Amino acid sequence: MNLPGSVTINDVMLRDGLQLEDKILTVDEKYDLAGRLIEADIPSLEIGSFVHPKFVPQMANTGELFESLLEKYGSNNFITLVPNLKGAQRAVEHGLAQLNFVFSASNTHNLQNVRQTTEESLDQFEAIKEFCDEHRVKLDVSIATTFGCPFEGQIAENRIQSIVKRVTESEPNIVTLADTTGMANPKQVYYLMNLLLEQYPDIRFNLHFHNTRGMGLSNVLAGMEAGVTSFDTSLGGLGGCPFAPGATGNVCTEDVVHMLHSMGIKTGINLDELIDTSASLRDILGHELSSSVLKAGKYDRKYPVPTK
Amino acid sequence: MNLPGSVTINDVMLRDGLQLEDKILTVDEKYDLAGRLIEADIPSLEIGSFVHPKFVPQMANTGELFESLLEKYGSNNFITLVPNLKGAQRAVEHGLAQLNFVFSASNTHNLQNVRQTTEESLDQFEAIKEFCDEHRVKLDVSIATTFGCPFEGQIAENRIQSIVKRVTESEPNIVTLADTTGMANPKQVYYLMNLLLEQYPDIRFNLHFHNTRGMGLSNVLAGMEAGVTSFDTSLGGLGGCPFAPGATGNVCTEDVVHMLHSMGIKTGINLDELIDTSASLRDILGHELSSSVLKAGKYDRKYPVPTK
Repeated sequence: MNLPGSVTINDVMLRDGLQLEDKILTVDEKYDLAGRLIEADIPSLEIGSFVHPKFVPQMANTGELFESLLEKYGSNNFITLVPNLKGAQRAVEHGLAQLNFVFSASNTHNLQNVRQTTEESLDQFEAIKEFCDEHRVKLDVSIATTFGCPFEGQIAENRIQSIVKRVTESEPNIVTLADTTGMANPKQVYYLMNLLLEQYPDIRFNLHFHNTRGMGLSNVLAGMEAGVTSFDTSLGGLGGCPFAPGATGNVCTEDVVHMLHSMGIKTGINLDELIDTSASLRDILGHELSSSVLKAGKYDRKYPVPTK
Repeated sequence: MNLPGSVTINDVMLRDGLQLEDKILTVDEKYDLAGRLIEADIPSLEIGSFVHPKFVPQMANTGELFESLLEKYGSNNFITLVPNLKGAQRAVEHGLAQLNFVFSASNTHNLQNVRQTTEESLDQFEAIKEFCDEHRVKLDVSIATTFGCPFEGQIAENRIQSIVKRVTESEPNIVTLADTTGMANPKQVYYLMNLLLEQYPDIRFNLHFHNTRGMGLSNVLAGMEAGVTSFDTSLGGLGGCPFAPGATGNVCTEDVVHMLHSMGIKTGINLDELIDTSASLRDILGHELSSSVLKAGKYDRKYPVPTK
């Protein structure tokens, strides 16, 4: 079993995770949670988005939040989502040094999400990349619905191939392949990533899985077996699926870190602090989270033998 | 990625799954659920146990249940748990043709569970095997806490090795290695099963995982990669962990079958009927189940594009 010695975790709870929550967190609540994740040595955090608050009220005040965060922690830890060039300009004005542009491999999903064809989004990505290069800002790109679309079903592999080819020509910082609604399976992940890592040895690929159908951690495992060492995860498994109310969201940060540590794979993250922070998140939101480790504790926890 | 072409599923909902439920199902409810699982082409079912109802009231009337089931379906589909020779005798009197004897690799856990040392249980297993051979009844054996004990922690690999050596000398029908409280990780599963399959090419190994810490499906994947093609699962993910109230139970039958089918691995099972039966189980028990596929639907389900 081919497994890496270490893995980089990017927590997306403060972006993807919060997007479908009814409760809108205050800037202070977000600031505190981000601080605690940094204290737990999470190496990278995706926070908020420079999307109009009319569309995603949960992401309002992202600029204000970053003013405090960047002042205290500097810009090394943070990524923010930008939907277009205007969003990128605003993010850079606020001092962000790493942006993530998201679009969808499925044309139908992209039209629904950002009212553009995939082709138009690819053009937009190139314009944003040019802007970022001018301002010496890193630009990542996330390709949503890579492993399946809720409207179109499976996306043809040659379509994924040609999209990846196109985005890599602009030399993005990170290319994330996202399983936006939890349709990926481990075999699919393994074979696609094997292929792409061979074709693009110089590109840093990152994987973004949802646990909608329970396969999230298996997909992380398959990704590692193919050679991927970078994953998006969400504290408490926060995040949802607009098509399946009540379904599980993103793969849970503490569950992924726990699985990695149990296999001796390093993340540099303090798992105990992570679990404590997840408990706080549960209290703030006022509902149970889909995190397994939060409920059950770590695998190496011993229980006292009952005396009766 | 080395994956099998087909896998055999043994559903244990009507045994392990029900053991910690507050609601005690009637014989009729159990009979109907078993019938629906057989209609969904589940190849093997572990049902009830011939344990004294004083200890496990959820398993009462197992004999009565089997009278109806065996009359309608014959004995090919059914396994039942026996805790000792007396239980085996009663099961055989009721017409059962395949029994499963469970004991624990952890001495502390075995003492707690069946008030015997592991050594005493091994002796008992040999006595039951002799009885089963005389009556031409198949005897399986399940080694609980193989991948970790809530009291002792990790069980030394050479202890597992010597227990497996001892039980295989009696030529059991199936040897199940059980992760009783969800402590296994995929790397551990892969390496142990690789080793055992090489050492015992003629033994049929079966794996029994709990999803307590979210690693259940990853462990199934790792088991298959090592060459295992037989798994215990529980409809709706029913089953629990007495040490972690609210934690997830056994790996969920429909989630495992769904993952296998999505990777093109055959089970012979009708997944749609399985999901329908899980919905009925949820209604009978009156609480949500930890099944992902029950909430989210299958990966290849397409949703209509929103029109507004």
